[in-house]
Amino acid sequence: MYAELLVQLLEQVRSGKLAVPSAVAQLRHLPFEDLGFAKIDHHRALRQGFPEVVMGQGKQTKDIAAIVAAMRRHGTNILVTRLDTEKMAQLKRLRTGLKFHPSARAATWLGKPVKITGRGIVLVICAGTSDIPVAEEASLTASMMGNRVEKLFDVGVAGIHRILENRLRLDSAAVLIVVAGMEGALPSVVGGLTNKPVIAVPTSIGYGASFKGLSALLGMLNSCAAGVTVVNIDNGFGAGFAASLINRV
Amino acid sequence: MYAELLVQLLEQVRSGKLAVPSAVAQLRHLPFEDLGFAKIDHHRALRQGFPEVVMGQGKQTKDIAAIVAAMRRHGTNILVTRLDTEKMAQLKRLRTGLKFHPSARAATWLGKPVKITGRGIVLVICAGTSDIPVAEEASLTASMMGNRVEKLFDVGVAGIHRILENRLRLDSAAVLIVVAGMEGALPSVVGGLTNKPVIAVPTSIGYGASFKGLSALLGMLNSCAAGVTVVNIDNGFGAGFAASLINRV
Amino acid sequence: MYAELLVQLLEQVRSGKLAVPSAVAQLRHLPFEDLGFAKIDHHRALRQGFPEVVMGQGKQTKDIAAIVAAMRRHGTNILVTRLDTEKMAQLKRLRTGLKFHPSARAATWLGKPVKITGRGIVLVICAGTSDIPVAEEASLTASMMGNRVEKLFDVGVAGIHRILENRLRLDSAAVLIVVAGMEGALPSVVGGLTNKPVIAVPTSIGYGASFKGLSALLGMLNSCAAGVTVVNIDNGFGAGFAASLINRV
Amino acid sequence: MYAELLVQLLEQVRSGKLAVPSAVAQLRHLPFEDLGFAKIDHHRALRQGFPEVVMGQGKQTKDIAAIVAAMRRHGTNILVTRLDTEKMAQLKRLRTGLKFHPSARAATWLGKPVKITGRGIVLVICAGTSDIPVAEEASLTASMMGNRVEKLFDVGVAGIHRILENRLRLDSAAVLIVVAGMEGALPSVVGGLTNKPVIAVPTSIGYGASFKGLSALLGMLNSCAAGVTVVNIDNGFGAGFAASLINRV
Amino acid sequence: MYAELLVQLLEQVRSGKLAVPSAVAQLRHLPFEDLGFAKIDHHRALRQGFPEVVMGQGKQTKDIAAIVAAMRRHGTNILVTRLDTEKMAQLKRLRTGLKFHPSARAATWLGKPVKITGRGIVLVICAGTSDIPVAEEASLTASMMGNRVEKLFDVGVAGIHRILENRLRLDSAAVLIVVAGMEGALPSVVGGLTNKPVIAVPTSIGYGASFKGLSALLGMLNSCAAGVTVVNIDNGFGAGFAASLINRV
Amino acid sequence: MYAELLVQLLEQVRSGKLAVPSAVAQLRHLPFEDLGFAKIDHHRALRQGFPEVVMGQGKQTKDIAAIVAAMRRHGTNILVTRLDTEKMAQLKRLRTGLKFHPSARAATWLGKPVKITGRGIVLVICAGTSDIPVAEEASLTASMMGNRVEKLFDVGVAGIHRILENRLRLDSAAVLIVVAGMEGALPSVVGGLTNKPVIAVPTSIGYGASFKGLSALLGMLNSCAAGVTVVNIDNGFGAGFAASLINRV
Amino acid sequence: MYAELLVQLLEQVRSGKLAVPSAVAQLRHLPFEDLGFAKIDHHRALRQGFPEVVMGQGKQTKDIAAIVAAMRRHGTNILVTRLDTEKMAQLKRLRTGLKFHPSARAATWLGKPVKITGRGIVLVICAGTSDIPVAEEASLTASMMGNRVEKLFDVGVAGIHRILENRLRLDSAAVLIVVAGMEGALPSVVGGLTNKPVIAVPTSIGYGASFKGLSALLGMLNSCAAGVTVVNIDNGFGAGFAASLINRV
Amino acid sequence: MYAELLVQLLEQVRSGKLAVPSAVAQLRHLPFEDLGFAKIDHHRALRQGFPEVVMGQGKQTKDIAAIVAAMRRHGTNILVTRLDTEKMAQLKRLRTGLKFHPSARAATWLGKPVKITGRGIVLVICAGTSDIPVAEEASLTASMMGNRVEKLFDVGVAGIHRILENRLRLDSAAVLIVVAGMEGALPSVVGGLTNKPVIAVPTSIGYGASFKGLSALLGMLNSCAAGVTVVNIDNGFGAGFAASLINRV
Repeated sequence: MYAELLVQLLEQVRSGKLAVPSAVAQLRHLPFEDLGFAKIDHHRALRQGFPEVVMGQGKQTKDIAAIVAAMRRHGTNILVTRLDTEKMAQLKRLRTGLKFHPSARAATWLGKPVKITGRGIVLVICAGTSDIPVAEEASLTASMMGNRVEKLFDVGVAGIHRILENRLRLDSAAVLIVVAGMEGALPSVVGGLTNKPVIAVPTSIGYGASFKGLSALLGMLNSCAAGVTVVNIDNGFGAGFAASLINRV
Repeated sequence: MYAELLVQLLEQVRSGKLAVPSAVAQLRHLPFEDLGFAKIDHHRALRQGFPEVVMGQGKQTKDIAAIVAAMRRHGTNILVTRLDTEKMAQLKRLRTGLKFHPSARAATWLGKPVKITGRGIVLVICAGTSDIPVAEEASLTASMMGNRVEKLFDVGVAGIHRILENRLRLDSAAVLIVVAGMEGALPSVVGGLTNKPVIAVPTSIGYGASFKGLSALLGMLNSCAAGVTVVNIDNGFGAGFAASLINRV
Repeated sequence: MYAELLVQLLEQVRSGKLAVPSAVAQLRHLPFEDLGFAKIDHHRALRQGFPEVVMGQGKQTKDIAAIVAAMRRHGTNILVTRLDTEKMAQLKRLRTGLKFHPSARAATWLGKPVKITGRGIVLVICAGTSDIPVAEEASLTASMMGNRVEKLFDVGVAGIHRILENRLRLDSAAVLIVVAGMEGALPSVVGGLTNKPVIAVPTSIGYGASFKGLSALLGMLNSCAAGVTVVNIDNGFGAGFAASLINRV
Repeated sequence: MYAELLVQLLEQVRSGKLAVPSAVAQLRHLPFEDLGFAKIDHHRALRQGFPEVVMGQGKQTKDIAAIVAAMRRHGTNILVTRLDTEKMAQLKRLRTGLKFHPSARAATWLGKPVKITGRGIVLVICAGTSDIPVAEEASLTASMMGNRVEKLFDVGVAGIHRILENRLRLDSAAVLIVVAGMEGALPSVVGGLTNKPVIAVPTSIGYGASFKGLSALLGMLNSCAAGVTVVNIDNGFGAGFAASLINRV
Repeated sequence: MYAELLVQLLEQVRSGKLAVPSAVAQLRHLPFEDLGFAKIDHHRALRQGFPEVVMGQGKQTKDIAAIVAAMRRHGTNILVTRLDTEKMAQLKRLRTGLKFHPSARAATWLGKPVKITGRGIVLVICAGTSDIPVAEEASLTASMMGNRVEKLFDVGVAGIHRILENRLRLDSAAVLIVVAGMEGALPSVVGGLTNKPVIAVPTSIGYGASFKGLSALLGMLNSCAAGVTVVNIDNGFGAGFAASLINRV
Repeated sequence: MYAELLVQLLEQVRSGKLAVPSAVAQLRHLPFEDLGFAKIDHHRALRQGFPEVVMGQGKQTKDIAAIVAAMRRHGTNILVTRLDTEKMAQLKRLRTGLKFHPSARAATWLGKPVKITGRGIVLVICAGTSDIPVAEEASLTASMMGNRVEKLFDVGVAGIHRILENRLRLDSAAVLIVVAGMEGALPSVVGGLTNKPVIAVPTSIGYGASFKGLSALLGMLNSCAAGVTVVNIDNGFGAGFAASLINRV
Repeated sequence: MYAELLVQLLEQVRSGKLAVPSAVAQLRHLPFEDLGFAKIDHHRALRQGFPEVVMGQGKQTKDIAAIVAAMRRHGTNILVTRLDTEKMAQLKRLRTGLKFHPSARAATWLGKPVKITGRGIVLVICAGTSDIPVAEEASLTASMMGNRVEKLFDVGVAGIHRILENRLRLDSAAVLIVVAGMEGALPSVVGGLTNKPVIAVPTSIGYGASFKGLSALLGMLNSCAAGVTVVNIDNGFGAGFAASLINRV
Repeated sequence: MYAELLVQLLEQVRSGKLAVPSAVAQLRHLPFEDLGFAKIDHHRALRQGFPEVVMGQGKQTKDIAAIVAAMRRHGTNILVTRLDTEKMAQLKRLRTGLKFHPSARAATWLGKPVKITGRGIVLVICAGTSDIPVAEEASLTASMMGNRVEKLFDVGVAGIHRILENRLRLDSAAVLIVVAGMEGALPSVVGGLTNKPVIAVPTSIGYGASFKGLSALLGMLNSCAAGVTVVNIDNGFGAGFAASLINRV
């Protein structure tokens, strides 16, 4: 609506009805953002063909369904994260058209095929079977954001040969996401074996003094391998997202 | 010593003294690492023209000087980090040939010119003037590792216009390192303004409930902007190293 | 019982049976509080037309109903806070006359219309949609205490343009309440944009290392913007109450 | 520099040299902030006659002296906080013209007399004699920002009569700053005795399980008296600043 | 079994078969505890007419019933603590003869009347209505252990007159138990008003940064009033027990 | 100033100029505290012959000397606590008349002999030799407050026979103070061996995960022996004070 | 697949088609792990006749049943840990052949009798009845791993005679596992009474400031008895496993 | 003194003056410990030829010298731990006869040669060069206690080949001590490579979120490799002591 005001104002300047100093003064009081001036683009993800992301946690099922329905009308791809078993069951009954990924606790809808725009492979590694849901969330996120994703699961440091046997795969990737709970030692070992950026994801797996992932988080922050960066506990989505940005540098 | 054993074994195979199945069986019991088989290369940094890094903290000055002297004989570039004022003064007296960077609390020696191998610009941002030493450590690390580095300092969130005025610079970088103490909010704002990977570095700046950087660390881990990853408190070196790996993806 | 003693003492003074110095001495030994002397008024809120407040959490529904019934007999306005869905449903069945505000997890009863006695506008801002219940509790509290209240929701720092577009509204308010979870960065940005007192409310929104609001709380306490004060995690009521006192300075 | 560009552009529109649509397009590409459009004013404090504030902690004495000298040339009032005994002695030798306030660990310089612009009295209360430096910092800050300040020191809760004897003074103030270490209980008692906003400042006074102010901080955040808000540990400046904003609502 | 050995040994001494020095030597090697020598009496409570105490938490209802039945056969008084609503209902159905005290979450059985053996009055004070269950547990424990108990509830520090009006009662007690949650300030105020030993009991009442009683616990440990000692969070039983020991000094 | 008003008022009553009910009404509005009515006595310690206590920590030596000089004029006994080696040396040079107790890090001055008013013996026990300074502070405090004090040092639980050999002494005491660092287990063992009140004092002795006394503090709060209460870390004075109050119940 | 390559290569050497130096060079580039060379044996437990261990926590019942069925086909002994009541009930209905040990929250299946290979007795001690499940888990683990196991339960330090009466049993064991919650003091006492290695297991038993076992954990880490080592909170399995390794040294 | 009583008593039995049952009864009331009955031997270490241990930290140099002198008179071997550079220098000047081990921050005196009584090799491994002092303390302790000790230093997990190359040495040891700071991951890797008991020692090496060893401690407690037990931060002595006990099982 303000765009018209701007045109009017300039027309008045042009026709001499408005003196330049007055025009300057008036321009100062226009709500500039709404004019599109140097508009800060918050649709940064969309510009790169990234999907819209809906955080399922803390939202009611019917609200998720409504958001999805609205997004589908725009044809954008959709990623819904943090869906527990019950919410998935409810969403299925609501016939939203979503495809469910139980192992990643997520759902997706594709308005158009995902186009691979990431440079290399995003390799998602996890230490134990309990870490898989977080690793799958990271994998699905990276996939939906246009990356080739490979997985290497259950290769914890207590059986160090498991990761060693796959050393060549580490170097073949462009970015690595390493998911681990308990003492969170895997990223240090992986970081020492490769030259590629490693995103470490602590999980809340463990008991007692694991303090719901705090132990793994601290372990990863103190990693003796340089080149390791860390995201929040259980934040598979954040790791997948960061890996996607890195894979486009 | 085992190398000879291997040659002997193969010679025996060649001469028919040893049957192939027996040779296979014997090979299984050789301590393979000492044979140099598939040696795991721990000089990963060097292979890419990265400098040798000496962590100054916790080392005595004379030991640092000795290490540097040894390295200089190989002609490798050298980066010495975590040097306090006193150690710098002592090292100067020892005539090591090091060049000192007081603002980064570091020193360097160049056996050969640093070659720019990083794809784009590494932009190092910091929130307050007290965060500068950590930001300079990150900058120097990235420079020594072959990246073009730019700096944008003292742009904290309490004066949000300072970062907004430089928004275009954010997008012109390939990777961003954002250094902040106190509440650690700057990476969230920066992450929301750009599509590039953001490495957040909490600093121990602040007092009272900042708990020596814990507050900033938690703030960054909980960043509401996706794509932000975090390194340890005051770990400018780690951030510069990770940015260098990302800039080569 | 002591009131009689006082009257007796004064009668003795009057009749000349007790000399004034002796009366002074005796007065010193009477337990003054029970005489009603200089009674400390704890009905501070009521004197200003504030409502009676009932904390719903930790109380059984029937007790809340009884308290409300008793208060209604005095005609005072009532604010019941911290009502979960189940308690609300039970209270509805008990026909207490309460009006329910589910988004604020609260209920009210008006014995008389709320009179606007606050000087200016209390602007309640929140960062994400998950922070809304706490923001609504703050808004309702301030409304019930006689303030004009405006709301600005879902303007988190990862999309900084959202708060910038509403900058004029910040300055039009007398007091600001800023509600945020995760890293709790919004109060710093808001505090940097305005000259008005900012009350920051951390929420328990987030996961992993948000530690149920601790991360946001620390972030707010360490705010780099002067003029920000903080209340307890999720304490929307406390923020609304403090804003009301400030709005009457 | 861009201001001229804008005038030029408008002049061109006025003279018909530039068509309106072209002008609109060009305007979109000007770096708006530098044009002064909707410029975000970060000199918020200065506009109200507030002093420039220099945080002494973490700065070298010669840098403080240089900053002060530069500010004096603009004639602005200056408040330097967090000066330890040694820095004060050094600054004295540097003949900066600063006036020192050792009890507040601060220094000031007045380019013009402080004008009282705050509505009422800011009453600064502290619990023990060890809390006085923080209380003095708060007092000096509020004074320098144009408030009438009164003090009520050493009135901790273990001798409850001390605060009771001064109850009338509590009500005569517009805003109260309550400084306490150890268990941090004083703000609750004060908050229960008055209707005025209370800003609580925890101090790092205490030993053992006081954990450098954490105990007092938690106590204040959990205050059972509504209307109490909290600032960071030992943050007398922040409390004085917030009180000043409140005193202008 | 060893008792016989002892008798045998002494018989041998008596009959002259064993010389005294040899007997001394042999005695040294007997496992003395099993002989009942200098048996350390762990029935310390019972010796003073204290009841047997059964901790209900973590025990199944049928086990509690069995223990109570066994104890009843000895005629000892019984105190069962930490019974939630469901366990009480189950125990009622099991017809154990227990008398239930829902407000103290406890049950008792009296084999003989409780004899008052404590010197003076144990006064149990609590800050808010939510603290009452813990206060009642303390009261019931002290009662069952032979003390005259008085109660003063809902006298929190935010309404300081409530505790002041009852100051005389504080001095009339021999020992005070002060129960409080949130900031835990009440023991400091009470300790400042009386010369009697004060046992402080933090409760888990509160939310957000109360961290399930940690805030109150730290507040009480840092009490500025000398003479205050502290027990574990919610440990009404421990406070009642300690008060009983103190009341017998 | 109000004292005159009171006399005037009573004179008016006496002379019949003021009716009794009017006098009662007027009395209600006088600020009672300033009249000295029902003055809350904060000299509670002094009334029982307790010494004046000066906390040396955080005070400058000359201030301590001045306070001591002032107190000496009143003839009261004096206890100065928390004096480090340097402060003691300085105080000695200031000829204050104080007697120094280096092992207790304290000093005393006796205006009159200490009179034993405590009922029984206060037994101070400590676990290791490093805990002795805290134990001596507790002992000296209890001595100065009129108790017979006995000591039992270096009887930690890793050599359980040491405390067992002294079991009779435990029962001969009226109150026990048990000082321990590291895991803080001694109070549990002592509490299990006696019927007397046990005050546990955690010390900051230990390293690594002792976290400056936190480990011992938590251990004592969780003591499995009922009847144990706890004071702050290193708070020997507080324990001695509490023991003195208990010894007068 | 690589195995064939190796055979081919050796055949070529044998037949003289490949020179020895060339063979050495080629061998260096084979991915050695896949050849089975120097395979790191992760079946370390099995080699010693240890059972396969299935962690029941976090696994669904049907998955546990499937794993058990697969293992039974190999005839290995099986230990399933961390089974809650409900999972046990479900597993019973699935007819897995497992034998259930409710007190240890575990189940076992024996393909062959457990052979005693441990040197001496593993003595499992626990402090209170609530610690028994963890102690039973440790006992069962040690039994299944081929140790003679003895138990000494409910011998907490508050009744020190209970452990003293059993002192001889302490010395008769080869390794001791000491399980305790609350203040975790028992390992210190036991460690002081014997020369044998003590493995301390903190349990999450307690309330309030026990912080789910943190208090016991810290107590044990700070044990004043040398020779005590610690495992994670509630980690009975880990203690039993470590004890088994020690019992084979 | 009681010894005579015992002899008297037995004499009376012998002479028939005291009936056996009466003697039994009287024996029950003698304070047994003072009789030397079943004396609990606290010289447990000495009995096995272990050295006397003096903890240097917190002791003054002259006291250490005095203790050493006294011990030397008994001819026992002596181990003095936790000596910083300054104390060593002072002790040297005191001519105590001690032999200094600067790398272990310790000193020893041998009254007689250490006899190897441990079964196998104690292998001490450390992750980084900064961990060496703690590792040396562990090595020296184990040596002094009669074990063959081998060392494997600077084999951190970021260069995993370093530990792999030494895998055979792991299996050749009887007990392993693994010392690591930062993320504390090495014990997990080592534990996964061997069947031997692993004692993990966290060190305070690191910065930022290493929190003085807390991060390494938590990592080790949460180790995914069974058979790992943990001692306190920097507790090399404790690890060496525990390893010695294990090596004698």
